Amino acid sequence: MDKKRIVIIGAGFGGLQVIKSLANHKDFEITVIDKRNHHLFQPLLYQVATAVLSPADIAIPSRSITTNYKNVKILMGEVDDINFDRKSVFYQNYELSYDFLIIAIGAQTSYFGNQKWPKFSYGLKNLKDALAIRRKILLSFEKAELLGDSQLAKKLMNYVVIGGGPTGVELAGSIAELSHTIIRRDFRMIDSGMTKVTLIEAGPRLLSNFSEESSSFTLKKLESRGVEVLLNSPVVDITKTEVILKDRKIETNTVIWAAGVEASPLAQKLNLKKDRSHRIVVDEYCRVESLDGVFCIGDVANFSKGLERPLPGVSPVAMQQGRYVADYIKRSVKGKPITKFEYFDKGNMATIGRTDAVAEFGIFKLKGLIGWLGWLFVHLVYQVGFKNKVSTLISWTWSYLTFRAGSRLIQEDINEV
Amino acid sequence: MDKKRIVIIGAGFGGLQVIKSLANHKDFEITVIDKRNHHLFQPLLYQVATAVLSPADIAIPSRSITTNYKNVKILMGEVDDINFDRKSVFYQNYELSYDFLIIAIGAQTSYFGNQKWPKFSYGLKNLKDALAIRRKILLSFEKAELLGDSQLAKKLMNYVVIGGGPTGVELAGSIAELSHTIIRRDFRMIDSGMTKVTLIEAGPRLLSNFSEESSSFTLKKLESRGVEVLLNSPVVDITKTEVILKDRKIETNTVIWAAGVEASPLAQKLNLKKDRSHRIVVDEYCRVESLDGVFCIGDVANFSKGLERPLPGVSPVAMQQGRYVADYIKRSVKGKPITKFEYFDKGNMATIGRTDAVAEFGIFKLKGLIGWLGWLFVHLVYQVGFKNKVSTLISWTWSYLTFRAGSRLIQEDINEV
Repeated sequence: MDKKRIVIIGAGFGGLQVIKSLANHKDFEITVIDKRNHHLFQPLLYQVATAVLSPADIAIPSRSITTNYKNVKILMGEVDDINFDRKSVFYQNYELSYDFLIIAIGAQTSYFGNQKWPKFSYGLKNLKDALAIRRKILLSFEKAELLGDSQLAKKLMNYVVIGGGPTGVELAGSIAELSHTIIRRDFRMIDSGMTKVTLIEAGPRLLSNFSEESSSFTLKKLESRGVEVLLNSPVVDITKTEVILKDRKIETNTVIWAAGVEASPLAQKLNLKKDRSHRIVVDEYCRVESLDGVFCIGDVANFSKGLERPLPGVSPVAMQQGRYVADYIKRSVKGKPITKFEYFDKGNMATIGRTDAVAEFGIFKLKGLIGWLGWLFVHLVYQVGFKNKVSTLISWTWSYLTFRAGSRLIQEDINEV
Repeated sequence: MDKKRIVIIGAGFGGLQVIKSLANHKDFEITVIDKRNHHLFQPLLYQVATAVLSPADIAIPSRSITTNYKNVKILMGEVDDINFDRKSVFYQNYELSYDFLIIAIGAQTSYFGNQKWPKFSYGLKNLKDALAIRRKILLSFEKAELLGDSQLAKKLMNYVVIGGGPTGVELAGSIAELSHTIIRRDFRMIDSGMTKVTLIEAGPRLLSNFSEESSSFTLKKLESRGVEVLLNSPVVDITKTEVILKDRKIETNTVIWAAGVEASPLAQKLNLKKDRSHRIVVDEYCRVESLDGVFCIGDVANFSKGLERPLPGVSPVAMQQGRYVADYIKRSVKGKPITKFEYFDKGNMATIGRTDAVAEFGIFKLKGLIGWLGWLFVHLVYQVGFKNKVSTLISWTWSYLTFRAGSRLIQEDINEV
């Protein structure tokens, strides 16, 4: 049998599982195209943004994950187009043919068509975003320290996070914690009482995918950490200095947008059946309907056949789909029977702050420190490609509990930012 | 006695020693102004540039070094001017008065007036420089891998380092090592034989501050690592694609300039007695002549009174001067006698590659692995502010010997660089 050519676009949670499942398999030749040189552990991105971890703690070059996979070739490039009739992927003047194609390109921040808002707020989907937020927050402390205790200093330390999902909750809790701990310890002129963190959610409760009980626990905990939470508050407009709601305006110097995502640009370009967020609709086998040998997994896929609502854009979905598709391909070339994809929901987790989290596994609900330990454990087990998990755990825990200073670097000089 | 107001400009090796020596001293109120938020362990900057270490391994926020120094205030800002008559420092619309002023602002890359050259080459004086070089080198591998084995791919992997001092030697050795190890292991289309590293030195030998013996040992070792060394080869011109020497042109995609430094911009602005490199001339007490209570230390100072040549721009000079000036100030406010500054030369060191270095301590000369261990030990002992030296040693050694992958991140997407 000729070797089958497998092309995977994207080395995120989904793509990486396909690679790992087909690694060193004699029947397949795998090419991975990614516009980044690294796999990113996205669930911890907010910790780089809030100066708890460094980029190297949550990202690892895709090449070093695949060093020993002799049938895997990695290309750093951006796919411009796909011709499904020719079975070809086009990137930077090259053409690459496939027998099987896996589209696993993930999602990007969505502002729901408000073109001005990205200018005045930060998204959080990659290392560059995270470093930009980190710089902005740390510089706001530095500038406030220069000014001392004045109205202007207070204005600098008004942080607004929009979106009450896990990312928004984690960011708001983590900014509050960072400002309280670091300002008290390392600054002389400003005090932590001057910071104000506001979390804005359009709907009636935080973490709408969690139980009511977890939502209200999270609300209470965030408030006790000094975060002002505004529910039922859709954003009307964002300007350079304000976030405008129906009934009030919030003055701020830093707005972080964690309220929506949509499929990555390539998906938006492809002429396929898609949903409102440009996600590609797939069938029960994670296949793109009517196309031969084309799969779509993870955040960029809309998998809703036979379900009440589409599967959520979380890493367990992407990983399970990745393993499923690899298995599908192996079975199909052998002519073996193939069953539909079924998602096994392992639950939801979100941290509220250091040593405080909510976690739900089926009927089990964990809160507070136990929830946080569960969160830590699950993140560890599911991290991909970090070779020495125990040493990573120690390093993370240490950074997390001791506020390791190296994560608070501003890489640029003051005259460059 | 009123508290004396001490202003220190710059938190490098020199400034930090003044701070540490006067920390928590009841007679002094210290303000430090730095345009960066971190102290940088500059001697290891080339290791970030060549993807061995991460920024957090060699930099630490100045605030976290001074957390427990209650009489020390840190400001992140850039000094615009100094009025020595008013005894005032001006920065971003603020004025700060001093009784004692320590100018410790260091040096920057100098292109000796060739204004086009910075456009076509990289300097290496801060984290941003190092990350830019790292990105450029790693991207050249990625682009070459896309192209496969062709003439163009080879062109991408031509690296030229200009300047045969310690930084140039360390960079050239480290680039050769990086390309050989990583390409062999992680790339499929290109091979390490395609890379070419050229080290260009205007003078007759490498490491001109070292003994002849160390110079020729270094030359031999670099050549055995595949680096082409060109001596007696002053650079005539640098263009977008070439480095031009008297008798030949070298085609290249990456030029790193490590051939010269000059005083930082503020020094160039001040109306003081200076040398050709704009360094401020000081007397035997590290004082700026004719000014009351003004000291200048480290790379920005020209200390040559009674010497054959000025003290070199290396960290031991800056650190010893920093401690001396702190002592001077303490003695002067108590009316105690003060002796002249004397530099105790502890020797020179440079690494050629992993487990290979030259080190000279007075009449002792160490080479090879022993030299490298000496290098490692001395860097460790002299690092400032890294709280847990043993854990840092372990982490460095580990990164250094295992090529830890996290240091090979390209922070940007391919379409952003």
